[in-house]
Amino acid sequence: MTNGAQDLDHLIALLSKLPGFGPRSARRAVLHMINKRNLVLLPLAEALQKVGATARNCLNCGNIGTADICDICASEKRSTGEICVVEDVADLWAMERSGVFKGRYHVLGGTLSALDAIGPDELRIPRLIDRIQSEDVSEVILALGATIDGQTTAHYIADQLAGVKVTSLAQGVPVGGELDYLDEGTITAALTARKAL
Amino acid sequence: MTNGAQDLDHLIALLSKLPGFGPRSARRAVLHMINKRNLVLLPLAEALQKVGATARNCLNCGNIGTADICDICASEKRSTGEICVVEDVADLWAMERSGVFKGRYHVLGGTLSALDAIGPDELRIPRLIDRIQSEDVSEVILALGATIDGQTTAHYIADQLAGVKVTSLAQGVPVGGELDYLDEGTITAALTARKAL
Repeated sequence: MTNGAQDLDHLIALLSKLPGFGPRSARRAVLHMINKRNLVLLPLAEALQKVGATARNCLNCGNIGTADICDICASEKRSTGEICVVEDVADLWAMERSGVFKGRYHVLGGTLSALDAIGPDELRIPRLIDRIQSEDVSEVILALGATIDGQTTAHYIADQLAGVKVTSLAQGVPVGGELDYLDEGTITAALTARKAL
Repeated sequence: MTNGAQDLDHLIALLSKLPGFGPRSARRAVLHMINKRNLVLLPLAEALQKVGATARNCLNCGNIGTADICDICASEKRSTGEICVVEDVADLWAMERSGVFKGRYHVLGGTLSALDAIGPDELRIPRLIDRIQSEDVSEVILALGATIDGQTTAHYIADQLAGVKVTSLAQGVPVGGELDYLDEGTITAALTARKAL
């Protein structure tokens, strides 16, 4: 369609389906890649094939890695006493970038949702309950989104895990945030949870 | 860095170097691709390898294709009398999307630029002059950018091609454009080139 060369059109069509990409940016990226064939195009093709062949969900926590048990679950350096429950792998990566959590994770794979007919068995909640019983877990930290579905899921999990300490992330003013730009719900939460200086 | 799996980090780093991509959108795209491995990731890896192995510049016009002579130059349906001169392949694709030009192209690979030390021999200008002499060309259409470098290049090429009809794209109000948002230069050009209704 654009230039008569089918392989190029096919590549552009595939790229333009990626999130954040459209036809125009896909064309631009393809021309860039062809101009830098050895620096960008060929390494990218190789990296994609490698990840395509090896990427899989960790059997223990649901994180994406290249082995049956992901590097975090397999690491001796991570404490086994704390499990941080997140909705998806992107959230796990966000937690890891903060670098402050040294325990292990459990990826639910979504949130409970009556509208979308997603119940506990569609998520990794049974596996989480197994882990609490088999691993020596002292605290479960719920790092779920501050949405209705996220909070519903948090309450359901807290109910299921009677006998273990369950905490959730604090709500309040984001670092660098200005009060003027915050919604009323966040200000209410921050005021309710105020701390002595 | 993000999750301990080197192959994933490598893929994210490569993707984030593409134009229009940053680390955040690269992570999002990688998770999307892994979730749709058979629909997106594997076909994309294959398409990249195919293009990486076959993409090359047309020996005649400089367009990108998968053979020594690109599909446009090889097509029997395109008239040989007109050559449209463009700066780069992206411009050729833009012309093709309009679908109105039925001749052949010549891709310069840039514009003359004293600042960047780009002279006629760095571009495909000698090859263009050869083509004018060897092909039966009745008109050369200069579709170069309305920038200083683009117009300098247009004038230089017009000087070199004495004896052939040389035209350039019209300047004026873009279709859908409102006068209020146009710069003075465009309004001046549109007024100077006004037509009888």
